Amino acid sequence: METMGTLRRTNMCGQLNKDHIGKEVVVMGWVQKRRSLGGLIFADVRDVTGLIQVVFDTDVNKEAFDKAESLRSEFVIAVRGEVLERQSKNPDMATGEIEVYAHELKILDTAETPPIYIKDNDDVSEQMRLKYRYLDLRKPSMQKNLLTRSKTSKVIRDFLYDNGFNEVETPFLAKPTPEGARDYLVPSRVNPGNFYALPQSPQLYKQLLMVSGMNRYYQIVRCFRDEDLRANRQPEFTQVDIEMSFVDVEDVIGINEKLIQKIFKEIKNVDITLPIRRMSYQEAMDKYGCDKPDLRFGFELENITDIFANSEFNAFKSTYDNGGKIKCVKIDGSADEFSKKGISKLEKFVKTYGAKGLAWFKYENNTFESPIAKFLTEEEINKLIERLEIKEKDVVFILADKESVVNTALGALRIEIAHDKNLIDNNKFELVWITEFPLFEYSEEEDRYVAKHHPFTAPVDEDIDKIESDPGAVRAKAYDIVINGDEIGGGSIRITNRTLQNRMFRALGFTDEEAQDKFGYLLEAFKYGVPPHGGIAYGLDRFMMLLTESDNIRDVIAFPKTQSASCLMTDSPSGVTDKQLKELEIEVTAE
Amino acid sequence: METMGTLRRTNMCGQLNKDHIGKEVVVMGWVQKRRSLGGLIFADVRDVTGLIQVVFDTDVNKEAFDKAESLRSEFVIAVRGEVLERQSKNPDMATGEIEVYAHELKILDTAETPPIYIKDNDDVSEQMRLKYRYLDLRKPSMQKNLLTRSKTSKVIRDFLYDNGFNEVETPFLAKPTPEGARDYLVPSRVNPGNFYALPQSPQLYKQLLMVSGMNRYYQIVRCFRDEDLRANRQPEFTQVDIEMSFVDVEDVIGINEKLIQKIFKEIKNVDITLPIRRMSYQEAMDKYGCDKPDLRFGFELENITDIFANSEFNAFKSTYDNGGKIKCVKIDGSADEFSKKGISKLEKFVKTYGAKGLAWFKYENNTFESPIAKFLTEEEINKLIERLEIKEKDVVFILADKESVVNTALGALRIEIAHDKNLIDNNKFELVWITEFPLFEYSEEEDRYVAKHHPFTAPVDEDIDKIESDPGAVRAKAYDIVINGDEIGGGSIRITNRTLQNRMFRALGFTDEEAQDKFGYLLEAFKYGVPPHGGIAYGLDRFMMLLTESDNIRDVIAFPKTQSASCLMTDSPSGVTDKQLKELEIEVTAE
Repeated sequence: METMGTLRRTNMCGQLNKDHIGKEVVVMGWVQKRRSLGGLIFADVRDVTGLIQVVFDTDVNKEAFDKAESLRSEFVIAVRGEVLERQSKNPDMATGEIEVYAHELKILDTAETPPIYIKDNDDVSEQMRLKYRYLDLRKPSMQKNLLTRSKTSKVIRDFLYDNGFNEVETPFLAKPTPEGARDYLVPSRVNPGNFYALPQSPQLYKQLLMVSGMNRYYQIVRCFRDEDLRANRQPEFTQVDIEMSFVDVEDVIGINEKLIQKIFKEIKNVDITLPIRRMSYQEAMDKYGCDKPDLRFGFELENITDIFANSEFNAFKSTYDNGGKIKCVKIDGSADEFSKKGISKLEKFVKTYGAKGLAWFKYENNTFESPIAKFLTEEEINKLIERLEIKEKDVVFILADKESVVNTALGALRIEIAHDKNLIDNNKFELVWITEFPLFEYSEEEDRYVAKHHPFTAPVDEDIDKIESDPGAVRAKAYDIVINGDEIGGGSIRITNRTLQNRMFRALGFTDEEAQDKFGYLLEAFKYGVPPHGGIAYGLDRFMMLLTESDNIRDVIAFPKTQSASCLMTDSPSGVTDKQLKELEIEVTAE
Repeated sequence: METMGTLRRTNMCGQLNKDHIGKEVVVMGWVQKRRSLGGLIFADVRDVTGLIQVVFDTDVNKEAFDKAESLRSEFVIAVRGEVLERQSKNPDMATGEIEVYAHELKILDTAETPPIYIKDNDDVSEQMRLKYRYLDLRKPSMQKNLLTRSKTSKVIRDFLYDNGFNEVETPFLAKPTPEGARDYLVPSRVNPGNFYALPQSPQLYKQLLMVSGMNRYYQIVRCFRDEDLRANRQPEFTQVDIEMSFVDVEDVIGINEKLIQKIFKEIKNVDITLPIRRMSYQEAMDKYGCDKPDLRFGFELENITDIFANSEFNAFKSTYDNGGKIKCVKIDGSADEFSKKGISKLEKFVKTYGAKGLAWFKYENNTFESPIAKFLTEEEINKLIERLEIKEKDVVFILADKESVVNTALGALRIEIAHDKNLIDNNKFELVWITEFPLFEYSEEEDRYVAKHHPFTAPVDEDIDKIESDPGAVRAKAYDIVINGDEIGGGSIRITNRTLQNRMFRALGFTDEEAQDKFGYLLEAFKYGVPPHGGIAYGLDRFMMLLTESDNIRDVIAFPKTQSASCLMTDSPSGVTDKQLKELEIEVTAE
C-alpha cells in the first residue's frame, strides 16, 4: 500500500464539471467499479460528493495503467490527472460530461469483497446493514441522509442563535426522573449504592436556566428512555430543546413557526405559509380521531351518534345508551373500489384497534346499500344522507363503540384507506399546531390522573379553578406541531407559581412530602423569583425522517440500535469484568 | 401575582441607550435593588444583558408607585415606561445615562430573600453556590461565561461547517472501552447482565465514519470518565471532536490553527499569527520539563550534566554515574528577590515533586555565592558561568536526579517562580503545537508498553521498523495544541493499515485473540478500504476556562459536579427503588 506522499486532493469527485476541462486535478476516493474496454481501463471513483470516471491509458501514463489493472471495488486510491470532455457522455451521472485521464495513481488501500453491495436499495437484510454499518453508510442515500441531518442542525442553530437563543449544555449524569418513562441508570462508584439517570429530557434543567435569568436557551441534545421499543423508536434519541422567558403561548408558537418555515425552505425548498393553521385537541379528536392528524387528505370523522337515539339497530342503540359514540368516514365516489372482500379486510383492520365490527353503506343508483339497511328506519337513512351530503357512489364506514375505541379505530381506518388510495404524498407537507390539550389524563393502570404533557405544564388561565373539582376538563397551555400525521415537536408554558405547582402535584396524587422529595429543588427554586416561561422540544430523528422521506428511523441515525436495543456493529451491550462490578459495588442477578 | 397580560417586552435592559430617550419601552427582569429617595422609588432591573434604573413617581403613575413600594430584591417585574435622560448620571453602569419612568408595573413573581447574594465575587462557599446554582447563575460573571461558551460553540460550528465538516451524532450507549480510563457503565434491561458504557470519546465511531467515506466529521459532544477527580476535572466533559480523511499531520494542523485563530479573534479580539510555533516533544521536555510548556515567560531548563562528569560533589557525581540528569533554571538579575528563607520554601516545593534537594547559586559582585561552592572546582564554576551566560545578580537553581524527577520538579519550579514574580498574564496567549510524541510509554504498573495517545495512533513513517525492536524510540504522528501551559487539544493521524494495527496491538502486549476480542469490528472494517485519516479533540471546558479567564472549571459549566461527582442542587446520584434494580437484574452490594 502507498501513502499520499506529497499528493493533495484538489477537488471532490462529484464537484468536477466542464469548467475544469483542461485542468490538472487530484481526486481521492473509493473505486466504485473498474472495467476494461478498447485497451483502456475505466474506474468510477466515489467520494461523499459523488462519482467521477477516471481513465487509465498506457499512452498517457503506463505506470498508472499497470497499477490500475489491480484495482477492485472499494480500493482507496488517489489519482492525479487531466480533466477532459467525454466522448460518450453519461446523462445518468452528474459528472457524466467529463472524465479524468490519469497521470499518476496511488493505491492507498486495498479491499476485500465487501459483504454488502455499496448501492442504494440493495435488498440485503437490515441485520447485515447494521453489522457492517460503515459499509452501509457508504451508500449515496445514507450519506445524503447524514449530510441533510448535519445541514438541518446547522439551520436550526443559526436561526436560534440569531434570535437570541444561547446553547447551554446540561448534565447527562442526572437525577432519576420521578414521573414518566423508565430511566437508564448509571451506578455511581464514588457513592456506592447510588445511581445517576440519563436524562429523558433536560426539562428541569432548562426551567432552572430560566429561573437563573438565561432568557433564551436551546440545545440539540441526546435523551434516553428505557422503554420497550416500538418501530421507529430508539433508546437514545435527539431532541431540539428550546425554552424562553417572559412569553406566553403565542410567543413560543410565533418564533417556532418561523424556525419551521426556515427549515423547510433551506432543506426542502418548500415554502410554508405562516401562520401555520391551528386546531384544538378537541377538534382533532372529533374530526380525525387522534391528536396528530394527517391533513394531506380528507375523510374527516363525522359524529352521527344523535341520529341513532332511538335506533332499532341494537349495536347502535346500546352504544347510544351507554354513552358511547357512533362516528363515520365518508369516501367520496369510491363505491366501486370497495369489494365485499376489501371491506372485510378493513373490518379485520379496525378490529386490531379494539372495534367489534365495521358497519358500512354505499350509495349507488340512489339506493342505500348496506348489510345493516334493514335495521335502520327511513328517517335515520334520510338523516344520514342529508348530514353527510351523500352523493352517488359514496361509501361510508361507521363505528359504534366507546369514544376512545371509535376514535382510534376510525382514525386508523381513515389513514389506511388513504394509503390504499395512494393519497399519501411524501412531497406534500401539511402542518398544524394542536393546542389546548387536556392538562391531565386518567391512568387506568395507576388509578389516578397523570400529567398529559408533564407536571410542570401550566393550565389555561380560565380553567385553573377546575384543577380540584374537574381535573379532566382542565385545558393546558400546551401545543404540538404535527406534520403529515407525525408529532414532530411539542411544548407548553410552564407553571411558575409555587402555589399552583403544589396544587398540580396534589391533583396528581402526591402528598406534599412526596412532592418535596421528588421535586424539592424545583419548589425551592420557585421561592426566589421565577419569570413566566415556556418552550418546546422537537424530536430531531422524526423530523429528519420527514425531511429525508425515510420510513425507517435507523436510516437517519449514523449508528442506531436494533429493536432489542443492541448495536450489531460493536456487539453491545456486552459483559463486563468482575473487577468493574466490584468497583461499582453491584452484582448481576441475571442468569 | 400578576401575569404579563398583553404586555410584551420591547427591549432588553442592558441594551437601552440614549437613542431610546423619549421612547416608550417595556422591560422585564429581576429587581437588583430598590431604594427610596426624595419621594421617588428607584429600582435597578436586571436581565441577561445588564441593568436599567427604573423610577416610580406618584406624579407619573400613582398605581405603579404604590405597587413599587412592595418591591424587594429578586422580585420579577414588567415595567412599561418612558426612557429619559438621567439627571445624575452613573458612569459605573452601562445604561447609566438614562432611566425609565414607569407608567405601568406588573409584579410577575415575588421572592424570598435569596440564600446567596446575586453579585460577583460574593465570598459564599462553593457548596452554597452549587446547591443554589440557579441563583449563582444569576451573577453577571456566570451569565457572561455561559454566553461566551455559547458563542464559542457557534464560532466553532460555523467555521467547521464552512470548511466542509459535517456534524454527525454518535451513540452515548456505547461499547465498553478495553483500553484507557474507567468507563461509566449502564446496565441493560433488555439484555440483562450486559452493559453499555458511556463513551470516553467517540474515537472509534469517528474513525468508522471515515471508513464509511464521510470525509470530514465534527461533533461537540459529551464524554465520560469515571476517574477520581482532580481539581478542574469533571466526570462528564465536553469535547470538540474532529476527524478528516485523506490528510497527513500538516493538513490537520493547518486547518485547526485557522480554527484556533478564528476563536481567539471572535471571542477575545486577539490576533494569533499563523503558523503557530511548533516544538517537538523532546524539545519541550528538555527545555520546560513537560509536554505542555507555558511560554508566557522564559526560565528555560538547561542541561548541565556533562559539566559534572568528574565532579567532587557527591550528589552530582552519583547522578552522573547513575545516568541521571543535572539541569538548572536561571532567573536573570533577581538575586535580591531570593532570600535564604525564600529559597528554603522553594526547596520544600520541589521536594513535593520527588526531588531530594535544591542546589542554587547567585552571582553577585563577580562572586559565585552558593552553599555548594566549596564542592565545585573552579573549572566547573567557569563552565557554568560561560554556558549559562551568567551576569551580575543572576540566580540559578539546580536539580540532580533521575531525568523524570528533574524535569517534573524543575518544570514546576519554573512556573512557581513565574507566579511569584507575577509573570503570568492571563491576557497574553502563547500557543505552541507539541509534535512527535512517543508512540508508547512504559507503564510500571502494568509492566508493559501502553499507548501514549491511544492504540490507533500512527507512528512516524521512519520509525515503523522500531515498533518491535525499540518501542520507546518510536515517534507518533501525534500533536497537542498547548496554550499558556494547558493542553487544550490533541490528536493524531491514525493507523489505517490492518497489518500495522496488528503490530501495534502486539507491541501493547495483546495476543491476536485479545485484539480480535477487543477491537474485532475495527479490524474487520479495515478489510474494506480505509482512507488515510486523522483528527483532533479539544477539551471545550478547559478552552472556556482560558477564554473566560476562569480558574475553576465549574465556572464554565452550567450544572457541574463536585469533586466527589455529586450534584448538590438535585442531590444526585441518589437511591433508586428495588423495582428498578429488579428490572435491571442487578443488586447493590454496598452497605
